[in-house]
Amino acid sequence: MGNREIRVGLVGAGIVGGGVVKVLREQEAFFRYKLGLPLKLARIVDKDGSRFAVLPVGDAIFSASPDDVLDDPSIDIAVELIGGTGYAKDFVLAALRKGKHVVTANKALLAQHGPEIFKEAELRDVSVYFEASVGGGMPVIKTIREAMIGNDIASLKTIINGTCNYILTRMTQEGLAFAEVLKDAQAKGFAEADPELDVGGGDSGHKVAIMASLLYDGYVPYSALSVEGIKDIAPEDIEFARELGYTIKLLGVIRRESPVSPIEVRVHPAMLRKGHILASVSDAFNAVLLRGSAVGDILLYGKGAGEMPTASAVVSDLIDVARNIAGGTPRRISMDYYDESRALPVKSLGELVSRYYLRFSVLDIPGVLAAIASVFARHSISIASVVQREALEGRNVPLIFVTHDSVEARLRAALAEVEVMDFIRDRTQVIRIEE
Amino acid sequence: MGNREIRVGLVGAGIVGGGVVKVLREQEAFFRYKLGLPLKLARIVDKDGSRFAVLPVGDAIFSASPDDVLDDPSIDIAVELIGGTGYAKDFVLAALRKGKHVVTANKALLAQHGPEIFKEAELRDVSVYFEASVGGGMPVIKTIREAMIGNDIASLKTIINGTCNYILTRMTQEGLAFAEVLKDAQAKGFAEADPELDVGGGDSGHKVAIMASLLYDGYVPYSALSVEGIKDIAPEDIEFARELGYTIKLLGVIRRESPVSPIEVRVHPAMLRKGHILASVSDAFNAVLLRGSAVGDILLYGKGAGEMPTASAVVSDLIDVARNIAGGTPRRISMDYYDESRALPVKSLGELVSRYYLRFSVLDIPGVLAAIASVFARHSISIASVVQREALEGRNVPLIFVTHDSVEARLRAALAEVEVMDFIRDRTQVIRIEE
Repeated sequence: MGNREIRVGLVGAGIVGGGVVKVLREQEAFFRYKLGLPLKLARIVDKDGSRFAVLPVGDAIFSASPDDVLDDPSIDIAVELIGGTGYAKDFVLAALRKGKHVVTANKALLAQHGPEIFKEAELRDVSVYFEASVGGGMPVIKTIREAMIGNDIASLKTIINGTCNYILTRMTQEGLAFAEVLKDAQAKGFAEADPELDVGGGDSGHKVAIMASLLYDGYVPYSALSVEGIKDIAPEDIEFARELGYTIKLLGVIRRESPVSPIEVRVHPAMLRKGHILASVSDAFNAVLLRGSAVGDILLYGKGAGEMPTASAVVSDLIDVARNIAGGTPRRISMDYYDESRALPVKSLGELVSRYYLRFSVLDIPGVLAAIASVFARHSISIASVVQREALEGRNVPLIFVTHDSVEARLRAALAEVEVMDFIRDRTQVIRIEE
Repeated sequence: MGNREIRVGLVGAGIVGGGVVKVLREQEAFFRYKLGLPLKLARIVDKDGSRFAVLPVGDAIFSASPDDVLDDPSIDIAVELIGGTGYAKDFVLAALRKGKHVVTANKALLAQHGPEIFKEAELRDVSVYFEASVGGGMPVIKTIREAMIGNDIASLKTIINGTCNYILTRMTQEGLAFAEVLKDAQAKGFAEADPELDVGGGDSGHKVAIMASLLYDGYVPYSALSVEGIKDIAPEDIEFARELGYTIKLLGVIRRESPVSPIEVRVHPAMLRKGHILASVSDAFNAVLLRGSAVGDILLYGKGAGEMPTASAVVSDLIDVARNIAGGTPRRISMDYYDESRALPVKSLGELVSRYYLRFSVLDIPGVLAAIASVFARHSISIASVVQREALEGRNVPLIFVTHDSVEARLRAALAEVEVMDFIRDRTQVIRIEE
């Protein structure tokens, strides 16, 4: 209350930070009119001073030290676009201790250190907003905790990493190998020089952990997730998927059968039948499909990353926080779901019930099919279909099994028995089929 | 400030009202925990007392008179689910004058009397929330005025009437005539006994008028819209569309080329190329595709009507308003865009530039194609393709023209010349093609 202007300190003027500066500048008059007082970009911090020179910064003061934001008592909101869980964590905690609100796009930080951060915010009566941490400009956080507040959410399925979706889309459309597309994507700037966080599934996992915590109003730490990436998807898996009527996507799944059930929360490549609404989400696009008790299925679709989409989300948070400050309600939306004492039970992957696609790499000799099928029968795993191609006898061939619903632990036990058999020539590919 | 509970009076306990009662009851403990104080359903009003008997109403007091809500000073929020623009308008204005906040699902009321209502709310320092008026449980209003606040929105395209989309989907999939599907839909309860508001495009138009007002921060009255319904779509149009690679949808379009341009705002059947993200929105589903300056394309998809989806939106508004009341910020989001003095200039349909599908109904005699083509040439309308089928000479046949981009006024002038020609046997069908 009584603010004459709301002052923002932005730390990290890289791709997204630059976008935020541009939007704040372009919409300056509009925001002033909407808020009834100016939203002023007071300080911009970056180690690289040359970034400052090319941005429309107005009379913001540039600095190379984040301390200049922390130590400036006139700054109401600190925007953290540093990234990572090292200094970014120190900075966010320090800003909260100084009584500043924080807006951040840092999914790794919240997925791994959420409780510490949200506890500090509660203690200081300020808030942490993080729409930009999940799904870029798609209003995922706002939809979950505001628009769907009247719903028990039975499940959330998401394609939430643009790099993986771009790679899988090109593999699907052009029949290329993973390594080939990755290399090309790196050359074009669509993938990071170190792609592990994306293609290993970690980035999706961080976002899924945040969404799970919001969905079920308790803490789901990143470490509790099952996370698999897309590196082992082979062109032949994509080809067999197509033949069987499926598309392969890197999917995040959150599901809870009832309020007392443990949560399924996982990230892995999955086969989606053609016609599934998520199967048609291609290239760098992201999507989040929510199933609410009242609203039914809702889909959000858009660019989940990039300079301006992410900046759009940061700015949306800035306006929300500014409205809270202007109205004297600094913590309008509670964040108790991030309390470590409210850690939610997570279902182990072994308990998962799913259909599976299995690609065995076998030596083409008589008796292989019978040997595998009998192991599966002994473990009560029911086979829905088998694809076996004619091949030259004595050569390695792929043998495809698609199972009916099975318990994963039982499937793994059967696989362990099969995989030591003589005719197995390579690691067996396992891809879950998602309905 | 200082409320010990927030009290709600609900008027209209029909389909949606019943859903609201259920959600409030189911989530009672959760909302109390989230808000820090109870959100209490104090009164339910309906002419039909039998509705009360079947609802989980707790200790809410039932009444047959809306005055019991208006005259109860303890009620903070009035939920208007009466519908129509008659008594509903009187009730909303009366509630505002009594200093009550209003939550409504009434699109017709806001599209036709928005300025009067929002002015009264401003005068009384209370707010009107209306998420449920557009797109049921999809957070359309919240996304436009909160999540996308950092964006200039270049365009919005929407399928926003479930009944029309259901009818067109069945016409497309089953090759049936409009009247046939409508009759069946009415029998099944998917269409109203009086379907005019849906199939005539009015319901879509009301929603589009509301969205246009929000998008461009000024008043776009319903009366300024061009609205066409789906009654004249023939099975053969759907069949020709399919052959040409298109799907026919009832589309709402809002577009502004620059902040100083007049707004395009229209509802009409449109051909969408297969592969367009809106072309795959089928059955009773709705979708809103927004193009933002920062965020790029965002799609919201879900059930846009029905008991529980609409109730979900009403409840989301109730929580927002309750948070505003609890925080002492009754008018957190300004509603000046609905001021009559801020009426926005709307482009006339004659100025529209579009591609067109034209189906002439002609007598199959020599010279017809040449006669039409020469009129079009004289009006500088460029033809992209023509479909003419072999027929028995002397019989009526359809003749299809697809134009390149043309100004609608010029197209209509050419059509007027063609339509008086001897060989024209019936009204010419005109469907715009949307990219």
